[in-house]
Amino acid sequence: MDRSGEDRLTHWIRNQLQKQNYDRIGDDGAILPSGPEWTVTTDQQIAEVHFPKDLPPRLIAGRLLAVNLSDIAAMGAVPSLALLALSCPSSYDVKDFFRALIKECGRLDIELAGGDLARSPELSATMTLFGRLQPSSNWLRRSNARPGDCLWIGGPLGQSAAGLRLVQKGARLQANSVVLPDQLRRATTGLEIEARRAIRMHLSPRPQLELGLWLARRPRVGAIDISDGLALDLHRLCRESQVGAEILAEELTMEASLTRLCQTIGLDPLATVLGGGEDYVLLFSLPADTGPPSKFGCRRIGTVTEGREVKLVQAGEKSPLGATGWDHFHNG
Amino acid sequence: MDRSGEDRLTHWIRNQLQKQNYDRIGDDGAILPSGPEWTVTTDQQIAEVHFPKDLPPRLIAGRLLAVNLSDIAAMGAVPSLALLALSCPSSYDVKDFFRALIKECGRLDIELAGGDLARSPELSATMTLFGRLQPSSNWLRRSNARPGDCLWIGGPLGQSAAGLRLVQKGARLQANSVVLPDQLRRATTGLEIEARRAIRMHLSPRPQLELGLWLARRPRVGAIDISDGLALDLHRLCRESQVGAEILAEELTMEASLTRLCQTIGLDPLATVLGGGEDYVLLFSLPADTGPPSKFGCRRIGTVTEGREVKLVQAGEKSPLGATGWDHFHNG
Repeated sequence: MDRSGEDRLTHWIRNQLQKQNYDRIGDDGAILPSGPEWTVTTDQQIAEVHFPKDLPPRLIAGRLLAVNLSDIAAMGAVPSLALLALSCPSSYDVKDFFRALIKECGRLDIELAGGDLARSPELSATMTLFGRLQPSSNWLRRSNARPGDCLWIGGPLGQSAAGLRLVQKGARLQANSVVLPDQLRRATTGLEIEARRAIRMHLSPRPQLELGLWLARRPRVGAIDISDGLALDLHRLCRESQVGAEILAEELTMEASLTRLCQTIGLDPLATVLGGGEDYVLLFSLPADTGPPSKFGCRRIGTVTEGREVKLVQAGEKSPLGATGWDHFHNG
Repeated sequence: MDRSGEDRLTHWIRNQLQKQNYDRIGDDGAILPSGPEWTVTTDQQIAEVHFPKDLPPRLIAGRLLAVNLSDIAAMGAVPSLALLALSCPSSYDVKDFFRALIKECGRLDIELAGGDLARSPELSATMTLFGRLQPSSNWLRRSNARPGDCLWIGGPLGQSAAGLRLVQKGARLQANSVVLPDQLRRATTGLEIEARRAIRMHLSPRPQLELGLWLARRPRVGAIDISDGLALDLHRLCRESQVGAEILAEELTMEASLTRLCQTIGLDPLATVLGGGEDYVLLFSLPADTGPPSKFGCRRIGTVTEGREVKLVQAGEKSPLGATGWDHFHNG
């Protein structure tokens, strides 16, 4: 029986999925397993907007999955099903993309359940990812922060922004090593490890799924993932919860080597932590008497306050903190 | 409190939604109402791939919703929730897009429940649409066709392909009237009504939701929506059901005026019906003793057979029918 090129590709994808005992593709819509409570998110990755055009397809697949996983982590859910809308040039190595995506989905027990394929001049990929609530768990909500809660971040910030700057200056990941253009290599002598970590963190972010699940077993956690920068995402958390916040600059300091790397490539360390974005680290509020286990490497950075103001405390001085993160619609 | 441009836009969208008593936006993921059985589909619309760049935003919004609704119709479900991933240039009239989308969603009781916004050089929009199964209904499946069933289409085919050809030649919809370039206007004299209908059908397809719901109340219906052409989508239906088919060319004839329009713009009528695509009409199989009510304007076009061959019967002669519809991945 005849197959179109699109159908041959779909058939190949389906075969790969069947090896993992998944088979939900084949109808106009995917039927969701009934029973659990579902959350769903959608995020896109577009060439030259979210990543340089020459990034290997498998890295883009990983990044697309990671940014969506980070939303599921921020809801406190277990990822479960994914849909993919992909458009790309005819010369694109689609199979490299799908092999990586299917492998990584398999590792996390996520079923690729359907999608849409089209040709276009530049790669554009949109994933829709479903998560389920675990037994005895509660959704993490942006509206759950209360005055008196402590504010936490799931790990250090600013690495991804430094990585982005390096990538913009021509740094690339090849296999497992980082290739830097000559000038950049000279400038970052002695900071190779830090540069490599920053680029990896930018290209292959690690969503905090386990932390999300731990938080979801608490009764009332306010949470958001830091995708557009701490300052902007903190404003969003506060707005949904109708509260204010004070955060401490001294709790936001970078490791010395990352500070040096930032200075070398022309980034202000504090501004990078506050506004760099794409950290994919959770920002969350917990009642003052609790804190996450140390294995997660979280940091307490401040407190939730009455009122609606967001302030930065620096050497004892409080100043208003603007929503100065990354903004796709700053002309809007 | 500060808001970024993206947040201002999200806030405006949320306000529009709240006027319809919808408010599911605000977290990293949307929480689905629990209870019913869900189906979900995703489809994209990309400038210069699926529509000309100068198409008004509200028409693109309508088309994006329509192509997704057609998948939900082909599952026999009621549309319920939508997510949107949109990227567009900074000059784009996003509000025109959202006003139309929210209005049309409201009319159909569909809640816009979340999404993702980004800037990009060309418009690209991906919708994820959820549908619920009605009580006493069954999912329509591509795998449900059985030998002996009759094959039906939900309405005439080929109009959309004629409309596409007219649009490619410069025809446009302005307000409610069609504007044709001079040469095209002269060529189609006497066929204005047909030309307008074809362009409308192409730009604003009408998904067959009611027909889908009627079919879902039957016990075993094979169904697919014709998006890539009758021939290709019939092959897909047969493949999933592991059956063959015979369809009758005489049941696929166009209205005389559409035939004349096709000939005028250089389209072969039968090839257009078989391979034109983007009809967004349902193709379905029913046991031989039943048929849909005449109000739906369906046509019986052939039968499901044993074996795996798809054949076209023309003046009593049977010939193999290839999967010759529209194919995004013909080089794949």
